[in-house]
Amino acid sequence: MQDDRSSLDGPRVVLLAGGAGGSTFAVGLRDVLVAAGGSLTVICNTADDLWVHALRVQPDVDSMLYGLAGVKDAERGWGRAGESERVSHELREWGLGWDWFALGDLDLGTHIARTSWLRDGDGVGAVVERLNRRWELGATLLPMTEDEVDTFVELDDGTIHFQEWWTRHRAKREPRGFANPGIESARPAPGVLEAIAEADVVVLAPSNPVVSIGPILGIPGIAPAIRAAKAHVVGVSPIIGGSPVRGMADVCLRAVGVECSATGVAGLYGARAAGGLLDAWLIAEEDAAEASRVAELGIHPVVTPLWMKDVALTRTLAADALAAAVPR
Amino acid sequence: MQDDRSSLDGPRVVLLAGGAGGSTFAVGLRDVLVAAGGSLTVICNTADDLWVHALRVQPDVDSMLYGLAGVKDAERGWGRAGESERVSHELREWGLGWDWFALGDLDLGTHIARTSWLRDGDGVGAVVERLNRRWELGATLLPMTEDEVDTFVELDDGTIHFQEWWTRHRAKREPRGFANPGIESARPAPGVLEAIAEADVVVLAPSNPVVSIGPILGIPGIAPAIRAAKAHVVGVSPIIGGSPVRGMADVCLRAVGVECSATGVAGLYGARAAGGLLDAWLIAEEDAAEASRVAELGIHPVVTPLWMKDVALTRTLAADALAAAVPR
Repeated sequence: MQDDRSSLDGPRVVLLAGGAGGSTFAVGLRDVLVAAGGSLTVICNTADDLWVHALRVQPDVDSMLYGLAGVKDAERGWGRAGESERVSHELREWGLGWDWFALGDLDLGTHIARTSWLRDGDGVGAVVERLNRRWELGATLLPMTEDEVDTFVELDDGTIHFQEWWTRHRAKREPRGFANPGIESARPAPGVLEAIAEADVVVLAPSNPVVSIGPILGIPGIAPAIRAAKAHVVGVSPIIGGSPVRGMADVCLRAVGVECSATGVAGLYGARAAGGLLDAWLIAEEDAAEASRVAELGIHPVVTPLWMKDVALTRTLAADALAAAVPR
Repeated sequence: MQDDRSSLDGPRVVLLAGGAGGSTFAVGLRDVLVAAGGSLTVICNTADDLWVHALRVQPDVDSMLYGLAGVKDAERGWGRAGESERVSHELREWGLGWDWFALGDLDLGTHIARTSWLRDGDGVGAVVERLNRRWELGATLLPMTEDEVDTFVELDDGTIHFQEWWTRHRAKREPRGFANPGIESARPAPGVLEAIAEADVVVLAPSNPVVSIGPILGIPGIAPAIRAAKAHVVGVSPIIGGSPVRGMADVCLRAVGVECSATGVAGLYGARAAGGLLDAWLIAEEDAAEASRVAELGIHPVVTPLWMKDVALTRTLAADALAAAVPR
């Protein structure tokens, strides 16, 4: 959906997000902004993109896409609703396929289309723009970068690809750290810096701060653009009561030496006033006692329900995030 | 299936073939040779291979493979039995897909596996070898070449890809000719010349002589190897009663100025005694009157039922072809 300011009077919002939790939050935020006549641009993590059997797969982009399009499998929290795996079964018969990595038939349509466009010479930005067009998303989805950035997980006995660690090992193998080789020379995708510069609000989704939001902020130019933006910057804690809502943020935070708490993640992002990113930070009611610690960091704490149990609660949370950006 | 001569005492047979008719004939020949303790190597046309949405598709190789494996859709005569098109439906939703070119889900498994192996660096020969391994084929399938050879169809108003002409236009647009650009620098795939040199019998399947057998014989080295082989060379006419059994051989023959008859095709291949390829030529009972014309070319005519209406009749035809190679 194109932003036509002549018909809009709500805020222009940029969301930095990963996959599952990010797409759930994005749907609520999109709903609020559509109702308010605002606009939403999602800058999506692509550091877990990978080549699978010569097909380009973008797990976070697709989760965001399917979520905003309303075709996500709500029960699993990822992939397409009504999915089947006939092709995957064939791939296994051919001795291909990773039994720990699902490739649904509907999903494969996306991967084949994407790969075909890439092979025809489109950049990742143009490819994601084409993905944007199929459904009425009510938001503009952008990849963080057009460059291929991988995430590797450093284990005691070697280094494996993030997707293998995350999906195959369910993050059960303790990581010593994460690496995104070459990220220092990656460039923000077309439109990313412009969207940040024009935004009224920048929101950090309750996504994994290390492996989802981390790589986005690791692309040279993106974090400085957020720091320099006129927008208020609001984050939503992915940690509730000291635990990640979903996913394996606790393991990831431990590996980078950050306390698994709302305050810990707030400290990782840092206070904008002190050279970090955050103006305000939404923390759960369960973590209300941490509000003063967050405030001591120089970040405005907002205590509010963070559980995105249904669309209504998610919209309320999104509205809370926007409200936290109103100048005080 | 590897040829282990210590346990074999039947003939070593090489079959040159295209897709539909070729694979039907190959099944009968395979059955006869398995029973006789012989071996079958199929040299398959790859000039109708193409890239579809960044996937490598080999229509004739796959028809041969599925036919020999017993998983071909018998009713359609091509593709896999029990096929579905969920992924293709998605591709069309993405604005991809040619509505005239079916990509079944099971078939896509083959295409994805093949493309993945190619992208990993395997040559076409190694890829086809991997395709050979899944099922007990009772035959060894070889591509004619590892080089990419396309077939283009010259029309009055331009040139289009063979597959578009064949599948989309059903050969209804009158061709002025066919071209395989670059075929003069293509090389026979590994194993092709060796199989021909070691063969006791070389059979030309009742495939389209212009666009299926033609490109195989157009690969430099293959026709001379057949001419020089110790094997008896037997062909099966694809024309019965002046008409192609299936496919559009009549249109193709007209374009290259060859009479659409058993004799016409025999003349196209030529008598081995006169620098051509054929020692013997199987023609249909409907064309018995042509036997003398074939004999005048210097080719031994064998009049026999050519209709491959069921497996039993096809086996009989294959046995007739082998019998025609017995020295007289």
